Amino acid sequence: MRQNPQRRAVLLDAAIEVLAREGSRGLTLRAVDAEAGVPTGTTSNYFANRAQLLVQILHRTRERLLPDPADAAGSPDTKVLLARLLDRARRERNVHIAMLELRLEATRRPELQAELAGFLRAELEANVAWHLETGLPGDRRGVVLLYLAMLGLMVDDLTVPTLLDDHPVAPLIETMAERLLEEQP
Amino acid sequence: MRQNPQRRAVLLDAAIEVLAREGSRGLTLRAVDAEAGVPTGTTSNYFANRAQLLVQILHRTRERLLPDPADAAGSPDTKVLLARLLDRARRERNVHIAMLELRLEATRRPELQAELAGFLRAELEANVAWHLETGLPGDRRGVVLLYLAMLGLMVDDLTVPTLLDDHPVAPLIETMAERLLEEQP
Repeated sequence: MRQNPQRRAVLLDAAIEVLAREGSRGLTLRAVDAEAGVPTGTTSNYFANRAQLLVQILHRTRERLLPDPADAAGSPDTKVLLARLLDRARRERNVHIAMLELRLEATRRPELQAELAGFLRAELEANVAWHLETGLPGDRRGVVLLYLAMLGLMVDDLTVPTLLDDHPVAPLIETMAERLLEEQP
Repeated sequence: MRQNPQRRAVLLDAAIEVLAREGSRGLTLRAVDAEAGVPTGTTSNYFANRAQLLVQILHRTRERLLPDPADAAGSPDTKVLLARLLDRARRERNVHIAMLELRLEATRRPELQAELAGFLRAELEANVAWHLETGLPGDRRGVVLLYLAMLGLMVDDLTVPTLLDDHPVAPLIETMAERLLEEQP
């Protein structure tokens, strides 16, 4: 397998675009070659097969969605962090759509399911630990509930953007944090 | 177009199974014929094209997920209703997976997006109105937040069932209702 990290990232980003635009069944090694504008066969020099590609896309989504260190610096406020998380999701819409495609593909492929479950569990536990260690308001269960409510909000916002037109998201996020973390408003 | 309602429902249920198992790109009129075990061409006698089929699947998912009237009878308790909602989602797993496929397909097809948005908005507003009219605890914003948190919970539970292994869902649902509706525990 070829190992040029920059080329590899370009191929994974092309794969994310294919997943978002065509759905998981549209994702083939050749479709990634075409999307990246590289010679046919390039992607198969980097990934042994489609299953390997799917797992590597999963890890690439995290690199693409890593929080900006500046966002969490200073005295973080949960509501501000959540609003930034949604802004980020909107700017990286295709990464999240690709992630939803991976979740659905994982319902059909046990090896991807195992990888995705391990990955998302580690991420959730790291988020909960960070929140509690930082001394932000809220308990463990409240942080998990906040994660679930933000997941629901992002699924709606990314797939059916007008669904919440009558429910502006800024106040929704504020009330979500206040009530789930039992902060004083 | 043929109109035998029973046959039509059988074809839509077969389409839901194809969507859940193969993803949206696997959904063709012929794949529905094969899944339903009917002669090739039957589905195209009932649905003019794939776009029509997608819209009708959307409406069929609601028939499949209609709450049991017994569930809401008597003096309903939000926590009990939410726990039943999750049980129902688990029993009708493929209907929910198909619905997630429709959400992703709707990011690519404007006509399906419009239909899905109108449909989900009407459903959300009906749920909020029912909750408030029934005199259950909680305000409008709290009910919308509860909808979002349950959506997140169901997306995780259906696509990555082991993700919340360390966070049993019964207490999560209880705390979600207590805090978002500001009920006394």
